[in-house]
Amino acid sequence: MIYDSQYNRLALLGTSVHGVSLFDTTLRDGEQAPGIALSAEDKMKIASALNDLGVSIIEVGFAASGDTERDMIKKIAQMNLSSTVCSLARSVKGDIDAVIDCDIGYVHTFLATSDIHLKYKLKMTREEVKAKAVDAIEYARSHGLKVQFSCEDATRTDIDFLKEMHIAAQDAGAGTINVPDTVGVIYPTAMTYLISELMKVTKVPMAVHCHNDMGLAVANSLAAVAAGAKQVHVCVNGLGERTGNAALEEIALGLYANFGVEVADLSRIGDVSKMVSRITGYPIPYNKPIVGRNAFAHESGIHVHGVLNNAATYEAFRPELVGVDRHIVLGKHSGAHSVKDRLNALKVKFPEDKIPELLAKIKELAVGGKEIDDAELMVIADHILWKRGDDDPVKLKEFAVFTGKGVTATATVAVEIDGSVRTSSNTGIGPVDASIKAIRCAVNDKITLEEYKLNAITGGSDSICEVTVVIKGAYDLSRLSVGKAVGLDIVATSVDATMEAINRDYIRGKGERNG
Amino acid sequence: MIYDSQYNRLALLGTSVHGVSLFDTTLRDGEQAPGIALSAEDKMKIASALNDLGVSIIEVGFAASGDTERDMIKKIAQMNLSSTVCSLARSVKGDIDAVIDCDIGYVHTFLATSDIHLKYKLKMTREEVKAKAVDAIEYARSHGLKVQFSCEDATRTDIDFLKEMHIAAQDAGAGTINVPDTVGVIYPTAMTYLISELMKVTKVPMAVHCHNDMGLAVANSLAAVAAGAKQVHVCVNGLGERTGNAALEEIALGLYANFGVEVADLSRIGDVSKMVSRITGYPIPYNKPIVGRNAFAHESGIHVHGVLNNAATYEAFRPELVGVDRHIVLGKHSGAHSVKDRLNALKVKFPEDKIPELLAKIKELAVGGKEIDDAELMVIADHILWKRGDDDPVKLKEFAVFTGKGVTATATVAVEIDGSVRTSSNTGIGPVDASIKAIRCAVNDKITLEEYKLNAITGGSDSICEVTVVIKGAYDLSRLSVGKAVGLDIVATSVDATMEAINRDYIRGKGERNG
Repeated sequence: MIYDSQYNRLALLGTSVHGVSLFDTTLRDGEQAPGIALSAEDKMKIASALNDLGVSIIEVGFAASGDTERDMIKKIAQMNLSSTVCSLARSVKGDIDAVIDCDIGYVHTFLATSDIHLKYKLKMTREEVKAKAVDAIEYARSHGLKVQFSCEDATRTDIDFLKEMHIAAQDAGAGTINVPDTVGVIYPTAMTYLISELMKVTKVPMAVHCHNDMGLAVANSLAAVAAGAKQVHVCVNGLGERTGNAALEEIALGLYANFGVEVADLSRIGDVSKMVSRITGYPIPYNKPIVGRNAFAHESGIHVHGVLNNAATYEAFRPELVGVDRHIVLGKHSGAHSVKDRLNALKVKFPEDKIPELLAKIKELAVGGKEIDDAELMVIADHILWKRGDDDPVKLKEFAVFTGKGVTATATVAVEIDGSVRTSSNTGIGPVDASIKAIRCAVNDKITLEEYKLNAITGGSDSICEVTVVIKGAYDLSRLSVGKAVGLDIVATSVDATMEAINRDYIRGKGERNG
Repeated sequence: MIYDSQYNRLALLGTSVHGVSLFDTTLRDGEQAPGIALSAEDKMKIASALNDLGVSIIEVGFAASGDTERDMIKKIAQMNLSSTVCSLARSVKGDIDAVIDCDIGYVHTFLATSDIHLKYKLKMTREEVKAKAVDAIEYARSHGLKVQFSCEDATRTDIDFLKEMHIAAQDAGAGTINVPDTVGVIYPTAMTYLISELMKVTKVPMAVHCHNDMGLAVANSLAAVAAGAKQVHVCVNGLGERTGNAALEEIALGLYANFGVEVADLSRIGDVSKMVSRITGYPIPYNKPIVGRNAFAHESGIHVHGVLNNAATYEAFRPELVGVDRHIVLGKHSGAHSVKDRLNALKVKFPEDKIPELLAKIKELAVGGKEIDDAELMVIADHILWKRGDDDPVKLKEFAVFTGKGVTATATVAVEIDGSVRTSSNTGIGPVDASIKAIRCAVNDKITLEEYKLNAITGGSDSICEVTVVIKGAYDLSRLSVGKAVGLDIVATSVDATMEAINRDYIRGKGERNG
């Protein structure tokens, strides 16, 4: 135990740790979380980001689950990533054949070894399990695959049988043996003991795969590394079955801070976390370590100056290390000074005479404890600066919509572009849909609506709503353009957001052509 | 290290742990999380729940922060809870006077002791810090207060000075000394070492207060207990500054499962967690250990039967232990059998002939990976059963609305009540507002809109939205009535939800009058 002067704390730098790597299973165990369904394109995007992060192995799926899955695995294999692409397989020939069919070189086979799984799930004896695992490993090896083998539910397996299995697996040709805490029941000290015992018989490198049912997945994984494990199974944002796997970001930072081992490009962690959250639809909890909104949140005011001068006073590490931002929030007590400070820090040029309007909007939104972060501040500021006026290339001259019972929602709009007025009407499944369609017809029928997002703040039917519209093809046919609007009337706000997206694309496009 | 047959795992039951208790700071450190602002009433509700849970000490606030805070503390003190009510105080006379003024018997004083805090925040020497801490403890003791003292940033404090501080604090009369990991930087093995060292000089019980910046708050707290700490500072749902404090639920279960110590009525954990989430507005992350939506989630189908028969196969512990439910979700592959199973389990009487309609609705919503849980299933089932037809006491005969640019949104409705038709029109700030107001005018002008909530599923402008309307005064003037509707057109869906709320109140009211 030594005193770590870099982090000013007691640390384990005395522990000798080297050659540690990450095995990411966001695309396999992560995808098994309820409500997550990833397309091949989604998986390719995430795999590319994990590759850039420096992950050693990416488990991208389960080849035996069908043609769609195998096509996806083949596509990722064809990306020629530096990371090794891996598929999960049960310890049966058919599953391994499915992996071979994908043209990848690495398979992760598994078979449960705990008595409870043997009795209730597999209905097999220990000898049968051992023989089956060995057969599968040998079959995979004979087809040129590298093999990582897992004794499923290892932490609830009789330790002597677990050792027998490890010996059998390495003799059969497994290059790595993984120790899964399948149901998340082990305690760090117990993990240290378990890995130390297994080290006595295991000659190949060991990996560890921890679930977070008791909130100890990260601590258990780090304890395993301290005891000699060489690879950690992780998921971005701690996704995975039930309460998830050890979070990639916490493991990467924990290995760096506690053992001085850098297993990934830490500065990319913030972006990868956001991307996975966006694609999976799983929000990042406010208080998630490393990447949560609050991880580096400080309330605007005098304390913020203190934090910015001596960040280490109240921060474990600097946010730049993991590619996230300090999150200075504004609230109902924030004055013009704090707001201007934030705008300057964000490099937003905002005219002095519009500051009172901005402040009023902030105070309006801050009612009820809501804090306004940098992204929200930029949207509000942008919205004030972007109010449509005489300078807009596309002006909305008229807009009317009607709907009702037994009536198809119908909207009529007139827009002026370069001095000429174009009128169009269209129907839709509701007034918002009809209005947006009518605008597209009037402006440019090549416009496609890529995304429509509505955030409503709970309250009365006159509560604030925020609409985000992403379109393509308004001016430049291949470029996305985003419009946001905040207002009380959902139809009018949707129209405002659409017009903003169109005008942004026009202004940008015309500027580029002239410039 | 022994093998734990209750949990089928390696465990620490050999470690002797006794006399451990919880110090809950949800109402103080938890409230400091950005965006949380609790009223006295909120805090009283949470304090009462923590008391029933069996928490030893409840830190309810910071008395010196103002009259409102002191009034709140006095109110909680007057509840005569079994739990000890505590206020935080800086190590200054004024702060302790504020606590005395609240008529409570327990104060938690603190002063930073790390060199970085001394240099940049306090601008004081070690000797000055020690004298100030002692003065404050003695002052509080001389006024009859019990004192818990914290060396803020203890884990980054020179260990010899930390020992000096502990000796001085206990000599001055502190009954408990807390060891805060203020910025969340320590590692479990280091915590074990730190507590063991402090045990050599600390004669009073020690507490531990861990932040989660590195994802290790729970592991560090449990390591401190294993080394001899007697009290753990916790927040419900892991709330608190930045990434939060150790989560009450994970600590309570961890102490029980790893050391056999029951510090709280575990079966109340699920309800307390939900209550705190509702009151603070901080959602419980899907994959939060113990209390997250996914902690006991299983996808409906053949695997569910397996889990229900032998839950331990894939569960670390049974959900009943912590008062939460298994979460059987339906998805796009769920058939009639699974749906009927769930309805029976939920005791929802649903007519056989409407099952195909229910299944179609589920499949429609399940597109894109969405899983339907029990609450959503009940709403959808309810909505099908509650379709307005010939039997509705209040029938919507006509409905039309128009809005636009330079036009005030205007709606006209005609409703039939007891055979007579009433027509009304009204304006609003948008078509939804105008429509709801027109319905109220036509049905009963005493109706008030208590709540309007819109959930929109991101997608195109034709994506699904769910509207919940809470009204009062439709039939019974004092009673709330809720209506929910799911649909594609936000205006029509809002009207549907409003009509449902009105009809529910009418049917209930008439039934009661006749019954």
